[in-house]
Amino acid sequence: MVLGGVVMEVRRPIPPSLQEIAGRVPTGIVSLDKIIEGGLCRGDTIVVAGQPGTGKTTLGLQFLFHGATKCGENGVYASVIESGDKLKRNARRFGWDLERLEREGKLQLVSLQSTMKAGVSTALETVLESLHAVNAKRLVFDSLSALMTAFESNAEARSFLHIMIKFLEGANCTTVMISEVPWGKQQLGTNFEEFLGDGLIVLDSSFDNSRVRRRIYIPKMRGTEHRLEGYDYYITREGFSLAPTPIPPDKIR
Amino acid sequence: MVLGGVVMEVRRPIPPSLQEIAGRVPTGIVSLDKIIEGGLCRGDTIVVAGQPGTGKTTLGLQFLFHGATKCGENGVYASVIESGDKLKRNARRFGWDLERLEREGKLQLVSLQSTMKAGVSTALETVLESLHAVNAKRLVFDSLSALMTAFESNAEARSFLHIMIKFLEGANCTTVMISEVPWGKQQLGTNFEEFLGDGLIVLDSSFDNSRVRRRIYIPKMRGTEHRLEGYDYYITREGFSLAPTPIPPDKIR
Amino acid sequence: MVLGGVVMEVRRPIPPSLQEIAGRVPTGIVSLDKIIEGGLCRGDTIVVAGQPGTGKTTLGLQFLFHGATKCGENGVYASVIESGDKLKRNARRFGWDLERLEREGKLQLVSLQSTMKAGVSTALETVLESLHAVNAKRLVFDSLSALMTAFESNAEARSFLHIMIKFLEGANCTTVMISEVPWGKQQLGTNFEEFLGDGLIVLDSSFDNSRVRRRIYIPKMRGTEHRLEGYDYYITREGFSLAPTPIPPDKIR
Amino acid sequence: MVLGGVVMEVRRPIPPSLQEIAGRVPTGIVSLDKIIEGGLCRGDTIVVAGQPGTGKTTLGLQFLFHGATKCGENGVYASVIESGDKLKRNARRFGWDLERLEREGKLQLVSLQSTMKAGVSTALETVLESLHAVNAKRLVFDSLSALMTAFESNAEARSFLHIMIKFLEGANCTTVMISEVPWGKQQLGTNFEEFLGDGLIVLDSSFDNSRVRRRIYIPKMRGTEHRLEGYDYYITREGFSLAPTPIPPDKIR
Amino acid sequence: MVLGGVVMEVRRPIPPSLQEIAGRVPTGIVSLDKIIEGGLCRGDTIVVAGQPGTGKTTLGLQFLFHGATKCGENGVYASVIESGDKLKRNARRFGWDLERLEREGKLQLVSLQSTMKAGVSTALETVLESLHAVNAKRLVFDSLSALMTAFESNAEARSFLHIMIKFLEGANCTTVMISEVPWGKQQLGTNFEEFLGDGLIVLDSSFDNSRVRRRIYIPKMRGTEHRLEGYDYYITREGFSLAPTPIPPDKIR
Amino acid sequence: MVLGGVVMEVRRPIPPSLQEIAGRVPTGIVSLDKIIEGGLCRGDTIVVAGQPGTGKTTLGLQFLFHGATKCGENGVYASVIESGDKLKRNARRFGWDLERLEREGKLQLVSLQSTMKAGVSTALETVLESLHAVNAKRLVFDSLSALMTAFESNAEARSFLHIMIKFLEGANCTTVMISEVPWGKQQLGTNFEEFLGDGLIVLDSSFDNSRVRRRIYIPKMRGTEHRLEGYDYYITREGFSLAPTPIPPDKIR
Repeated sequence: MVLGGVVMEVRRPIPPSLQEIAGRVPTGIVSLDKIIEGGLCRGDTIVVAGQPGTGKTTLGLQFLFHGATKCGENGVYASVIESGDKLKRNARRFGWDLERLEREGKLQLVSLQSTMKAGVSTALETVLESLHAVNAKRLVFDSLSALMTAFESNAEARSFLHIMIKFLEGANCTTVMISEVPWGKQQLGTNFEEFLGDGLIVLDSSFDNSRVRRRIYIPKMRGTEHRLEGYDYYITREGFSLAPTPIPPDKIR
Repeated sequence: MVLGGVVMEVRRPIPPSLQEIAGRVPTGIVSLDKIIEGGLCRGDTIVVAGQPGTGKTTLGLQFLFHGATKCGENGVYASVIESGDKLKRNARRFGWDLERLEREGKLQLVSLQSTMKAGVSTALETVLESLHAVNAKRLVFDSLSALMTAFESNAEARSFLHIMIKFLEGANCTTVMISEVPWGKQQLGTNFEEFLGDGLIVLDSSFDNSRVRRRIYIPKMRGTEHRLEGYDYYITREGFSLAPTPIPPDKIR
Repeated sequence: MVLGGVVMEVRRPIPPSLQEIAGRVPTGIVSLDKIIEGGLCRGDTIVVAGQPGTGKTTLGLQFLFHGATKCGENGVYASVIESGDKLKRNARRFGWDLERLEREGKLQLVSLQSTMKAGVSTALETVLESLHAVNAKRLVFDSLSALMTAFESNAEARSFLHIMIKFLEGANCTTVMISEVPWGKQQLGTNFEEFLGDGLIVLDSSFDNSRVRRRIYIPKMRGTEHRLEGYDYYITREGFSLAPTPIPPDKIR
Repeated sequence: MVLGGVVMEVRRPIPPSLQEIAGRVPTGIVSLDKIIEGGLCRGDTIVVAGQPGTGKTTLGLQFLFHGATKCGENGVYASVIESGDKLKRNARRFGWDLERLEREGKLQLVSLQSTMKAGVSTALETVLESLHAVNAKRLVFDSLSALMTAFESNAEARSFLHIMIKFLEGANCTTVMISEVPWGKQQLGTNFEEFLGDGLIVLDSSFDNSRVRRRIYIPKMRGTEHRLEGYDYYITREGFSLAPTPIPPDKIR
Repeated sequence: MVLGGVVMEVRRPIPPSLQEIAGRVPTGIVSLDKIIEGGLCRGDTIVVAGQPGTGKTTLGLQFLFHGATKCGENGVYASVIESGDKLKRNARRFGWDLERLEREGKLQLVSLQSTMKAGVSTALETVLESLHAVNAKRLVFDSLSALMTAFESNAEARSFLHIMIKFLEGANCTTVMISEVPWGKQQLGTNFEEFLGDGLIVLDSSFDNSRVRRRIYIPKMRGTEHRLEGYDYYITREGFSLAPTPIPPDKIR
Repeated sequence: MVLGGVVMEVRRPIPPSLQEIAGRVPTGIVSLDKIIEGGLCRGDTIVVAGQPGTGKTTLGLQFLFHGATKCGENGVYASVIESGDKLKRNARRFGWDLERLEREGKLQLVSLQSTMKAGVSTALETVLESLHAVNAKRLVFDSLSALMTAFESNAEARSFLHIMIKFLEGANCTTVMISEVPWGKQQLGTNFEEFLGDGLIVLDSSFDNSRVRRRIYIPKMRGTEHRLEGYDYYITREGFSLAPTPIPPDKIR
């Protein structure tokens, strides 16, 4: 039994306790939940990082839609840039009717752009009010990278991030924090990832023998037994799904 | 059926609804439109990135010319640097008579250089007036990279970009945003691409077995089923055209 | 006999003196202690560096838990970011009951975030008070990287670090200093490592023939005979453990 | 027929119109003119980039000498650093008598160094006066890289460049803008190249099977049908010359 | 006979004159002295650069211990960070009793940390007083990298370095200047090495066919015939030692 | 006949005119002079770049010694850092008696360190006075890299450089400008090389099949026919010498 590692000799795994299962927040991506003990840890903040077009927003929307429709957990999508209208349009392609959720008070889409110019406290107020308005247990924040450029100084961005995370932890609100990996780079774009220590999911897209191959890696997931190997993943009309088995040895470069 | 991914098992594709087709804005490059469900999404802002000489301007001009002559959608070419005269001369090579379109009130070529020195609001006014003057439904902005150096501070450039995009979205104006990849680099040159989240088209030029090979990649196209593999492309007297099939496996390095 | 080197010709090893053995502080990771003459040198400050998800926090917690329960050495976990609650939750997975240790006065979990904003002296006071409160002989500081961004200036961070290390040395308090290697990089993230000259442990995670392989390297351990080769390591329900033998020649790329 | 691309299927080329031929400015390098439809476009500004010793100055001098002696187009060599005396000495090696051209009022060599310290307007005045004095239709500016360091701020350099280019365009003066690629780098050294969008010629020097090989690439040449493949080039007593055929497949690495 | 080069044709070596031998300062590492004409040049300043754990401090201590006990040359170890206590502890492992040397007035261990905060002149005074107190003919300065971060500005660090080196030269004091190469980098960390032009010794540690291999290179040693090839080196209970022959051809990658 | 290029078809070389030979300044390294038409061009400024220990200073000293003893051309060695004493000591190894030359008024060694702190004009005065004092026709300036750090601002360094070069040109003083390539880098360290356009000599040191191999390249030498291929070089008791033939094809990696 191994936590986030590789099994060398077979030891008897200790099954997660009931309490541990209870503490899990399913992402709505069944194939992902299966490999992280049922879901994210309640109240944790997980960074989802990837280059443009790897499906970070889709993953975030699926997380919120699943919470609101299947788990009785309302959610907020807080975006520094994106308009709510485009999010709704794109979600519709997956059959996720965000407008209905909004009308039913299960979801709020918040654009932070203008409030951020008004400073840290206004922006925070906006997010916290939204979380409060729907009694949110899930948050998607899009994105860490935009956060950096939205505020006048790094200190402001950092301050905003600290306070928000403290609040989320207190409110037991599970959060997906989107981080843009610039096109053509392999590194995370900001220095804020280290403040978000509960987990890191990397969405990777690269060429493999003439096809683009999308792979998901989970380098870090606190308090969770997970494999470090990658999984192929696909984005279909039903949203995200992972291949059933880790990438087999002869398929990795 | 896969959205921007690779098919593993054959599932029955859900054909795009009529509403979805109606929402598409053909680029004028038939072979490109064919692989992105008929065109760009109306009101979206798409980044077109590439090194010098990869045809970014040509793609933009073709987009505007096609809109004005075939779709009844007028357009604006807003350039931070380029003069209208040179654009017209180069367009003539492709048989695109921009001067006639100007005279007919279907196109405006705007040079922002001097207005940008006068500050954000003057520059914005210039762009918005042009869009208004021809009731533009298409905009080409050339370029993100020049925008960065044209304003005195990054904050001004960011502010300009934010307001313009908000306006474009409201006006349902579909936009091609040109981004210069510096010669000898593989990365995007600015940090603004992340604000422009609807789509990314990369024009790549590299040496392949003694010939220069031009390939187009679409890493991201929101709400659109597209292949991630590249296509060879050519610039002929008719403008841009893509090879009919994605790059076959044994041709990719 | 070789100190941190490779044996060329067999010379008679000089066994460590009793005094030397007495001066060792076992980490609680038996397989690690075995290869560094029984443990860390008392009063030393060791940097533990690794990318996200390599187990730096787990190593730190194991070091403190072992000290408090097996060696009669109380400890402090000082975190710039992490909340005590999450640390406790994660420790529970390994059967380490931090809450009991806190109640028994054998451990303190300190969050420095807010105090750091109040300046160097307040932050220092907080750490030193905690160390004093439990008469700590072990400290884990998490992390060097966060320290850099937590203070307004590098000078403040440096000053904080200098004074703290001086104090730890005087108090014979053995310290594990966590350093985040950013995801996708191979280099240490800060310039502070050079102030922490007693030892460096690197936790490495990379792909090796389709599996993620975790390896531990000890490039530096003052006054200690250690091998420079890496060891595979695993994180199980019992915490950290190293493979019994260094990585064999034909397994290294 | 392909513009700056690769021919896939043979289409009937449309020969350049008489007007197009009339608009061409021969560089004086016959083998170069042959592959760019007879020369540069009148009034365009072309960047010539290369590492030290690749012959950028020689190309510029040949361009001016040919214009003044064969095309009735006078020219100006504006240098931020170089003294006129050294230019003349070096030109003499190629049999180009710059002093005679100066005496005949067909050429001016201008050193901008001191005027640049006097600020943008003084420097501009100096260039424009020279252009006016000989009614110049050709300009070589040496160099973009020096321009950056000659002015106190980037804003000044940018401003200088903008105004000068506007003037050149208005005066139908064709310009070669030299850009230094630092020794040991492959990238352009400044951010100004993007303002100079009409064309880019790269002079490359690298080791190929024990010999230094000089190759010329034309990544970009607006409104011109050109091959993207490189050509070997040589600098002889007659100046620049290109190999008659593009680099054959088996000779490119 | 070759100075710091490779022998092509055998020429008769000119043996160093007596005066030259007299001017040599043995490092105490016999195998090193053998390949640099008997030792360092008196009054020279030699940079010893290496990554953490390569033995820079050990080399420095051996240099001082040998001087004080075998050559009648007293010494000073001036450290920006390290405490004297730890140096003594680590030296004891090699059988070097620094405390006795201190008591006998043959060695001083100086910590500069606090004095550096008091500014350049205070720090300088501290070093010079120590050198004077024991009439030092040898100095180890640890480290260049720390020097950079210890002062508020680079100008202060540079000024400190200049004056100290001038003094050392005047006092005929031979100096080992330690320079930290950051872990995971191959480059020197500061820009001060160029001020220290007499010699450069690089301690390299890398993986070679499953084993860590330590190699010492001497890229530069003014006025000294030395080989440029590397030597394997080991750190044993007797301190540093170099393999008797340069690294043979088939052992270098 | 080729200027700094590769011969494709044999053309009849035009021998340098007498005037051209007369204008050459022999470096004192016969094997180097042979491949650059007899020496450097009178009044030119040549950059000699290389990593530590590649012999830049030796080349400079040989240039001055040869000038003073064989060509009746006196010289100045202006160093930003180095003391005259060490230069003399090192020169003595090659049998170059600098002290005698100083006494005979044929050479001056100038240390600029302190004068540079007094500002540009004081430093310039010092150099020019020395040049004047011995009626110098040769100057070695050591080094460009130190120049950058010696002045408070880049503008000061640039200003110093500009004025000095103007003077040197006027005085027909041939100059060797030393440029430090940092250890572990392949690029030039400053941005000043581009101001020094007459020539570039690169001293390279790298490992080649277990031996250190020193190679000299001449990427640029204005108005001179030179090969671009490298030559092996050696530093013997007689100073610099180049291998008689360029590096043969099968010896270059």
